[in-house]
Amino acid sequence: MKREKLVELIKSRETFLCVGLDPDIDKIPPHLIENEDPVFAFNQAIIDATRDYCVAYKPNLAFYESLGLSGWQSLMRTVAYIGDSHFTIADAKRGDIGNTSKKYAEAFFKNMPFDSITVAPYMGSDSVKPFLEFEDKWVILLALTSNPGADDFQLMRLENGYHKLYESVIETSSKWGNADNMMYVIGATRPEYIREIRKIIPNHFFLVPGVGAQGGSLTEVAENGMNKDVGLLINASRSIIYASTGENFAEAAAAEAKRISNQMKDLLQKKGVI
Amino acid sequence: MKREKLVELIKSRETFLCVGLDPDIDKIPPHLIENEDPVFAFNQAIIDATRDYCVAYKPNLAFYESLGLSGWQSLMRTVAYIGDSHFTIADAKRGDIGNTSKKYAEAFFKNMPFDSITVAPYMGSDSVKPFLEFEDKWVILLALTSNPGADDFQLMRLENGYHKLYESVIETSSKWGNADNMMYVIGATRPEYIREIRKIIPNHFFLVPGVGAQGGSLTEVAENGMNKDVGLLINASRSIIYASTGENFAEAAAAEAKRISNQMKDLLQKKGVI
Repeated sequence: MKREKLVELIKSRETFLCVGLDPDIDKIPPHLIENEDPVFAFNQAIIDATRDYCVAYKPNLAFYESLGLSGWQSLMRTVAYIGDSHFTIADAKRGDIGNTSKKYAEAFFKNMPFDSITVAPYMGSDSVKPFLEFEDKWVILLALTSNPGADDFQLMRLENGYHKLYESVIETSSKWGNADNMMYVIGATRPEYIREIRKIIPNHFFLVPGVGAQGGSLTEVAENGMNKDVGLLINASRSIIYASTGENFAEAAAAEAKRISNQMKDLLQKKGVI
Repeated sequence: MKREKLVELIKSRETFLCVGLDPDIDKIPPHLIENEDPVFAFNQAIIDATRDYCVAYKPNLAFYESLGLSGWQSLMRTVAYIGDSHFTIADAKRGDIGNTSKKYAEAFFKNMPFDSITVAPYMGSDSVKPFLEFEDKWVILLALTSNPGADDFQLMRLENGYHKLYESVIETSSKWGNADNMMYVIGATRPEYIREIRKIIPNHFFLVPGVGAQGGSLTEVAENGMNKDVGLLINASRSIIYASTGENFAEAAAAEAKRISNQMKDLLQKKGVI
């Protein structure tokens, strides 16, 4: 998907919500389990219920891989079912030496129609660049993640005493691609950093996890991170897809997605984007 | 697999070779392609030919994922076929927030019988620890990789001016587990660092890629990195499995594995380990 289309989707739907599709077989409502493909049945219902309130879907690969072959089948059905009305993110956090990253890129961009993949930066340029060779496909690079362990290395100060590791990751890697094919994962649990990161990369989109179950604030993220093209995809997974674990799970997911989406509409209006 | 068994395998087979199973469908000998599962047929022949000359096999997940469902089927068949006579490494370079890493751990340690998985350190402790909760299973953490991009971040100097990022990764992460459940990826293309790393972690095993197609020296790695329990698994992938791409590919793979293994025997004798 081209950047222009993504921005247009956000403006026309008045939302920058990304729904994380992390279907945990232990949390899927019991009445779906007898289905031939319960994970796909669950995703299908969530997608039908939330389509109008979001612009992106982000299946987290771990939840599919942990189910083996049937999980991959569910993933392939899910991304096909989403179609091209939404930006799709393979939350896979891959990254390897050049010839191997090329194979991962083929897996997600050629064999499956994902628009983007999350990639870990530790192995450097040749682990990231193979993903950038596909037209209208995106790398979403881990920069400052939402989890407690982000403190261990990402926030380390480098030799010059000024830069932290995540800043160096952003500055260096942003030269490998551009704002039309790279985004960055910036956790909502660290709003104090979002304003600083926006100064380093004014035009790039941020994929922001950590609103919802992890406790980040939507308003703080938007105030600190929004740019003229919005520049934000804010993800919520568990708070939407498990809003209810009963038979009304899809309605509950729709209600929660709509609630967040309404907040986003206010923030977009406040910023004058819509 | 327990550490004692791995050390015993190395001493009894007089080799510390790991064979990387990176089956590229474009390089598999043409006469296998008509097979119902050409990737498994290829792996099976490579495994049969090299079993006596190695102690570990390392399937690289990208090569299986890029084939979709049939690739996962081939991977599952391959790890089952290897059995418990060899240490098995899922070269997956995974890592995510806690509840997600737990799902990856289930995928590779519960649903498949891998002994170990490679993990990327960027997201810190809670992305790694869930993998350490499985008995007799191992995390192999990326520390100093063999590719050119390792220069981008891994070799950065930190604030104190002394430590580099990879050293901090090793020092910090080695406290999350111990030498019985953690190993480190240390590239053979950087022998000058191996001696220094051995001082930081005298007892841990290193998984060393980069000998063979990437040009690292087996002798230099052994001289700098071997400890009393050997402490090394040296991987070769392409130089063994594509030693020939003709009908004699298995014989050629055996010959190359045997050649490396003989060198390893000399190095083990020189060190007085066998």
